[in-house]
Amino acid sequence: MTKDISIQVIKRLPRYYRFLTELENNGVDKVSSTKLAEVMSSTASQVRQDLNCFGGFGQQGYGYPVAMLRKEIGRILGLDKTHRAVLLGAGNLGRAIATHLNFDSLGFQLTAIFEKDKKLIGTMLRGITVMPDSDIEDYIRSNHVNTAFLTLPKDSVEPLIDKLYALGIRNYWNFSHFDIARKYSDTIVENVHLGDSLMTLCYRINEKNH
Amino acid sequence: MTKDISIQVIKRLPRYYRFLTELENNGVDKVSSTKLAEVMSSTASQVRQDLNCFGGFGQQGYGYPVAMLRKEIGRILGLDKTHRAVLLGAGNLGRAIATHLNFDSLGFQLTAIFEKDKKLIGTMLRGITVMPDSDIEDYIRSNHVNTAFLTLPKDSVEPLIDKLYALGIRNYWNFSHFDIARKYSDTIVENVHLGDSLMTLCYRINEKNH
Repeated sequence: MTKDISIQVIKRLPRYYRFLTELENNGVDKVSSTKLAEVMSSTASQVRQDLNCFGGFGQQGYGYPVAMLRKEIGRILGLDKTHRAVLLGAGNLGRAIATHLNFDSLGFQLTAIFEKDKKLIGTMLRGITVMPDSDIEDYIRSNHVNTAFLTLPKDSVEPLIDKLYALGIRNYWNFSHFDIARKYSDTIVENVHLGDSLMTLCYRINEKNH
Repeated sequence: MTKDISIQVIKRLPRYYRFLTELENNGVDKVSSTKLAEVMSSTASQVRQDLNCFGGFGQQGYGYPVAMLRKEIGRILGLDKTHRAVLLGAGNLGRAIATHLNFDSLGFQLTAIFEKDKKLIGTMLRGITVMPDSDIEDYIRSNHVNTAFLTLPKDSVEPLIDKLYALGIRNYWNFSHFDIARKYSDTIVENVHLGDSLMTLCYRINEKNH
């Protein structure tokens, strides 16, 4: 069933999921397509079309069952599984990532954090003791890890990536500007380029004031 | 001229710009469409088509002049102007943002940082002394600021946004889950939802291993 969902719909799923989680936390049982359309900046008919992809949820006039719909979207996203991940880089960005996100509910378990800066090694982050980066190889060899979160600068990622790839890591959440997928085409890389986001904001401001 | 550029091309500009900056920093004078296509995960003909939008750059067989092309793309993005911005939130995420990015080259000048946590007020970040959030109103009233970077949780943004809007702030770089554009439709909001990015990674991993 999942196979038939278009990439456009998939891209909207995290947002649906996020909003449904909020509703569920607020004790809401049912939600209408109109209300969902509002938060999705979409139309009620688009929402109904999207949600039809996952089978027979919702009945005209009754609204969608929040908990069931959330669970189903979570299942499609694969959030019910857990990928074991390590974080490389415990500087400001690494610390923000480690403390900011609830990985468990996003499909990942953060199992270890590595850093080369001696001042940061041994400190605690999210209940995890930061380890020296010289331990990476041993750790990954003896633990089931399939994902790396990279909050290091490009220059540090470049020499590291061959090692990580050789150790079998194929999934990357990459905050650096190093283009991992170009070097290793069988990796899955989700890039977060904060500078690109800021440039886009700049463009949109200027465009509006033109 | 800028008006004719499609949104698809615009979305690729930050990436072109980032790569051209790197080339310029490495002392490279000319770059071929083939080389640009490689880093853009595109084709040489697509690159030539993109860059044709900005006028007569490049000559078949000679490559594009790196510095000129970078400057022109920067101009289209509006990076040659400077928007004055304040950062709200000096926690882990705020600190990461403040220290991580070179705002000056991205079209912005960070002029002040505000925080409600007393332990953080008075500390220095990027040469800026963190101020108490009670000073926001006075500061914005007496300084030309048009943009706010929000690295606060949703609950803190919600009561703050009316004040910021009333003070004339219309541009937001928003890391919180509060949907600013839904409340104020004449704002320009660039959202960074890190959780959504991680869910997308999760989906892609599971999809591949299906």
